[in-house]
Amino acid sequence: MLIDNQPYQSIWWNETQVCPQIIDQRQLPHGLVIENLYTFADCIRAITEMWVRGAPLIGVTAAYAMHLATRENTADKWHNMAQQLLNARPTAVNLRWAVEQQLGIMTTYKHNLALCIEKTLQKAKQIEQDDINTCHQIGQNGLPLLKAIAIQKNNKPINIMTHCNAGWLACTDWGTATAPVYMAAAEGIALHVWVSETRPRNQGASLTAWELGQNDIPHTLVTDNCCGHLLQNGEVDICIVGSDRTTLTGDVANKIGTYLKALAAHDNNVPFYVALPSSTIDDRITDGKSHIIIEQRDPNEVKYVQGLSNGKVSEVLIAPPNTPAINYAFDVTPARYISGLITERGICAANSTDIRKMFPELGNSYAYSK
Amino acid sequence: MLIDNQPYQSIWWNETQVCPQIIDQRQLPHGLVIENLYTFADCIRAITEMWVRGAPLIGVTAAYAMHLATRENTADKWHNMAQQLLNARPTAVNLRWAVEQQLGIMTTYKHNLALCIEKTLQKAKQIEQDDINTCHQIGQNGLPLLKAIAIQKNNKPINIMTHCNAGWLACTDWGTATAPVYMAAAEGIALHVWVSETRPRNQGASLTAWELGQNDIPHTLVTDNCCGHLLQNGEVDICIVGSDRTTLTGDVANKIGTYLKALAAHDNNVPFYVALPSSTIDDRITDGKSHIIIEQRDPNEVKYVQGLSNGKVSEVLIAPPNTPAINYAFDVTPARYISGLITERGICAANSTDIRKMFPELGNSYAYSK
Repeated sequence: MLIDNQPYQSIWWNETQVCPQIIDQRQLPHGLVIENLYTFADCIRAITEMWVRGAPLIGVTAAYAMHLATRENTADKWHNMAQQLLNARPTAVNLRWAVEQQLGIMTTYKHNLALCIEKTLQKAKQIEQDDINTCHQIGQNGLPLLKAIAIQKNNKPINIMTHCNAGWLACTDWGTATAPVYMAAAEGIALHVWVSETRPRNQGASLTAWELGQNDIPHTLVTDNCCGHLLQNGEVDICIVGSDRTTLTGDVANKIGTYLKALAAHDNNVPFYVALPSSTIDDRITDGKSHIIIEQRDPNEVKYVQGLSNGKVSEVLIAPPNTPAINYAFDVTPARYISGLITERGICAANSTDIRKMFPELGNSYAYSK
Repeated sequence: MLIDNQPYQSIWWNETQVCPQIIDQRQLPHGLVIENLYTFADCIRAITEMWVRGAPLIGVTAAYAMHLATRENTADKWHNMAQQLLNARPTAVNLRWAVEQQLGIMTTYKHNLALCIEKTLQKAKQIEQDDINTCHQIGQNGLPLLKAIAIQKNNKPINIMTHCNAGWLACTDWGTATAPVYMAAAEGIALHVWVSETRPRNQGASLTAWELGQNDIPHTLVTDNCCGHLLQNGEVDICIVGSDRTTLTGDVANKIGTYLKALAAHDNNVPFYVALPSSTIDDRITDGKSHIIIEQRDPNEVKYVQGLSNGKVSEVLIAPPNTPAINYAFDVTPARYISGLITERGICAANSTDIRKMFPELGNSYAYSK
């Protein structure tokens, strides 16, 4: 999508530098900083410190990280390195998926390092391109939902609510929740997006508001707290959020606060959709609440808020310095509150029958594991 | 309650300075600043700019403001001044109640200014003292709820969730939602409070966390988004929040985000109580959603976050500078999600039959008005 009217991806391979390049998303919206991830350690740092974030983008970054591993270390280290990646963001299932894909190749070719390097680079690039195609398909599959509302509303602007950033910055391009929005706008459908700031890290305020602005999509920033009021008062026609991990039964682990929006949408009969690549579906688990261990992050993300002050990005402390805080990064929205899953193959209901029907390759590996 | 182990009120009359004194709550938790409200205009400013906030404290401040009006202006200005106060924070019904009480006295004694001054000061002091007594009673009436949970849990710590600041800083003393908590703690009941930060102004993080810390109540700060997850995972035994305005049918307008907590409590069978002085009951209205006009505040409260940086209170911008934002200050929680109202006379169900039974003097003035 566009930044300053130039097309960008959130990650791409730089042949000259022999490394992936990314946008350091911690600096957005206040500065556009491109970083080279020269080493495996750079990738770990970029994932852990959230230079990159969003399940699909984490997956692509992890794929490149595994490729860099083949250039840096001998095969006896690779499993450890893979584990390091898995520990970097435990909730994101795309990361696990990308790492496992690469580890498969690395195991096959471990006695031919040159081929291993070549094949893992190929694979990383393919995962990157697949992610773009997947998001494009999600957009195409979600578009009819928005068209139908536009017709119902007689072309008055559709109001779409989203949460966090499930935009192109969370993926390689297009985004998941935003893909139908960008495509609807391109078709001339009048629309407006409610962007919830998404505490503690404010990815709604800093990323979604920014990317929508850069791509000329009308939008309004609100606090997370405000979303119930908007849903209760007819200000929202549809919610579309992303997913970090989806059970085979359609429960969705997504950015903390998603569950509250789903409850309010349900209470007010507003459709609540989750846009997701099937790579977020973890077919080993069937109960989100008991099977998904929710990642806890640094409590200081709650106590300190980052933003721009006097032209510099800095932090302010919003609580007494010694106040204890806790910081769960995700919550689980039970399938019963989800109107449907917008996937790259189409829209399916959030239940195992429909998910298996659309993705028959899933569901055979079921065995509960953390 | 205590600040640095000294007992304080949030407002008091200073005989020497001939004015009310308050704590400038915008400076908390980073600095304790006492301000004199010398004039009516000072009071308006303190209410509008939220040096004081919380329905009961706004009411007491408004009572003193009307008293100052009698010292400053002639009777022909008083109605205008009253209107100015009513416009300062349109949602808080206590403000209307206090202003109307004073205006009644002022109308009666308008031909005897000295008596008018004396009577309105008396009345303001009485409203202040009544507020203390009321909160004390709310605490006494809520205490058995916490005792019952403590027995059920075999004296393992009770987990109480609250929202915003319905603490002693929102009242004159004790608080509404916090009064039962302080009293339970004083009786040796083990407890812990989940404090949600309460965006956009973070009164949970800056006020509730601070006042609980000053009074040695164990607590943990979380984002507003986190509350659904905690409620879903058995981490909360009871929610107690405050009310800015309550309909005769038990709908509650309270700080934005309250409705989302109520939905999540309901979804997980956690009792959700509202602690309120009956002065927040607006017996002219019977439907919160359609009868309560929700105050919109400055969108910059959403885009900028205030906190401490390098020893100074300052603000950071969390969104692109030109992002549009909207800032509703309250939302309405429908009575069906409320387990009960903890009032100064006892606990009643959130419906008009039970409210009228407990407050027979209410409900006769019903006529919808904004």
